Amino acid sequence: MPRVGCTLLSMRTLGDLGEFGLIARIERLARNQLLPGVRLGIGDDAAVLRARKGEDTLVSTDSLVEGVHFRWRNQSPQRVGRRALIANLSDLAAMGARPQAFTFSLLAPPALPVARVDGLVRGLLQEAQRWHCPLVGGNVTRARTTALDITVIGTVPSGTALRRQDLRVGDRLCVTGTLGGAALAVARAERSGGRLSRLAEPRLPAGQTLRRLRGRGGCIDVSDGLGADLAHLLRASGCGARIDPGVIPRPPGFKTACTRAGVDPERLVWAGGEDYELLFSVRPGAASIPELTRRLRVKVTEIGRVISGSGIQGIPRGGARQGWTHF
Amino acid sequence: MPRVGCTLLSMRTLGDLGEFGLIARIERLARNQLLPGVRLGIGDDAAVLRARKGEDTLVSTDSLVEGVHFRWRNQSPQRVGRRALIANLSDLAAMGARPQAFTFSLLAPPALPVARVDGLVRGLLQEAQRWHCPLVGGNVTRARTTALDITVIGTVPSGTALRRQDLRVGDRLCVTGTLGGAALAVARAERSGGRLSRLAEPRLPAGQTLRRLRGRGGCIDVSDGLGADLAHLLRASGCGARIDPGVIPRPPGFKTACTRAGVDPERLVWAGGEDYELLFSVRPGAASIPELTRRLRVKVTEIGRVISGSGIQGIPRGGARQGWTHF
Repeated sequence: MPRVGCTLLSMRTLGDLGEFGLIARIERLARNQLLPGVRLGIGDDAAVLRARKGEDTLVSTDSLVEGVHFRWRNQSPQRVGRRALIANLSDLAAMGARPQAFTFSLLAPPALPVARVDGLVRGLLQEAQRWHCPLVGGNVTRARTTALDITVIGTVPSGTALRRQDLRVGDRLCVTGTLGGAALAVARAERSGGRLSRLAEPRLPAGQTLRRLRGRGGCIDVSDGLGADLAHLLRASGCGARIDPGVIPRPPGFKTACTRAGVDPERLVWAGGEDYELLFSVRPGAASIPELTRRLRVKVTEIGRVISGSGIQGIPRGGARQGWTHF
Repeated sequence: MPRVGCTLLSMRTLGDLGEFGLIARIERLARNQLLPGVRLGIGDDAAVLRARKGEDTLVSTDSLVEGVHFRWRNQSPQRVGRRALIANLSDLAAMGARPQAFTFSLLAPPALPVARVDGLVRGLLQEAQRWHCPLVGGNVTRARTTALDITVIGTVPSGTALRRQDLRVGDRLCVTGTLGGAALAVARAERSGGRLSRLAEPRLPAGQTLRRLRGRGGCIDVSDGLGADLAHLLRASGCGARIDPGVIPRPPGFKTACTRAGVDPERLVWAGGEDYELLFSVRPGAASIPELTRRLRVKVTEIGRVISGSGIQGIPRGGARQGWTHF
């Protein structure tokens, strides 16, 4: 009775599997994903990576916590896993980096079904494979809530990383794609009890191209909403910005969908988060917007200018609440 | 009334401080700890590291969870922080690596007093400074339990990392320092309500020397007890081991102290964990034990031999439970 077997299997918990059973399971799932830059993957005290000559190594860490960043009830474990890695890959994109490898630390209660862990790991590996970023290590530990903590390693040619601090007064402020869509999907799922499916695209190719672009300035990824992330960018560079709120790119039919969902579109754009678009600056004489769109292979919109001073001019009323904060 | 001010300050929680207040606070504490290998530290989407020519990059991740790995009531927050980093540094030691930098991901409830976070960070940075391993990034997020998740980055000359898989049949199995002391201290604190103070020493200099030693074999750090970690080493190398349990090095007065505390000394040695000593093999003709002790600058004891087959011969009765497991 294979059906019964399957059902029983999917009801097994981490408590049944044990720590080392779980590690062996993750190792099995992650096998055959090693790349030439990885000299030693999962299974030792540390992974061993080899950078190409003349490259800097980049490191970035991000967490996804049940009840804070995700709920099991409105998305598949696989989606949770993919999303966890996308958040990290987006940080590499914002630095113009090429992903090299990642580590995965799982905190989970013993009652967590093994099927969920499998889904998480499959999601992580699916996204990892797309970007040639193998899982090289990690840790599993008991905790009351499930949390995924990921550290991603990437590389750039020495000295070329896109930084937040590289804005200059007079720069044109640009953003890839559209903003507000991810927050709208969450608002709709919370309201209707529907499921989340669509995931943001980590802008790795666009970030890498931008890094090489003559006249590029600073860059950040929009993970906490335009308000919060623009503020980070300005603070790092010691500048202010004047934004034209009317030109901020939104998904098609955004306003209507927001009205239907009973949410303020400005709040979603400015404080929504998780769009994982790149927010960057280019010098006044650098590439035109159509040229940027063509070279970055994603729609680019100019949304304002970098000015002297500090703070953001042009935030509309609904956008005043600036992004998600944890405490 | 500065006294009142101080009291109020120490009662502030993460909820009062806010996410960005907390990040700014950690940044302030971590300032002035950057080294030439770090091109960009905390405050951007990723840290930027520069390896020296001809070096491999090593990555290792470990977590410390409240109620699983530590309790607030029997140690200072500073000790928790130091211990968290020591666990990671010990993994680098076991690979023979030089630490380069680390990232710190904090999961914490909003009610956590700021004074505790300050203590954690101070402890982390204190240990980091000793080993020239600056904090270069991380993440803070809300969660129900406090957890510290750390990823440490290190380097070795290309192709020289000490691996678990490098044992050969006939190798002599050696261990640095003594085993069982850390578990005894925990057992005593649990029993008497006393406080934990002494911390293990990450064997970084010994690991780096061992890496360069002619005739060295494989290596692991003893973090989960001799039984579990020796088993890992043997499995990675496809070998077995014959151990002489009578020669396993223990702290002075260990047996008496165990009797007084009402704990089985064998269980502490084999299944206790957190000693963070190095367990390694050397070829039959390599350096003698006195020479190893002199060169590694720590007492080295030969505890057995690598044999063909699998499993461990010579585990005494009390040592059969093999180390801590999470689920």
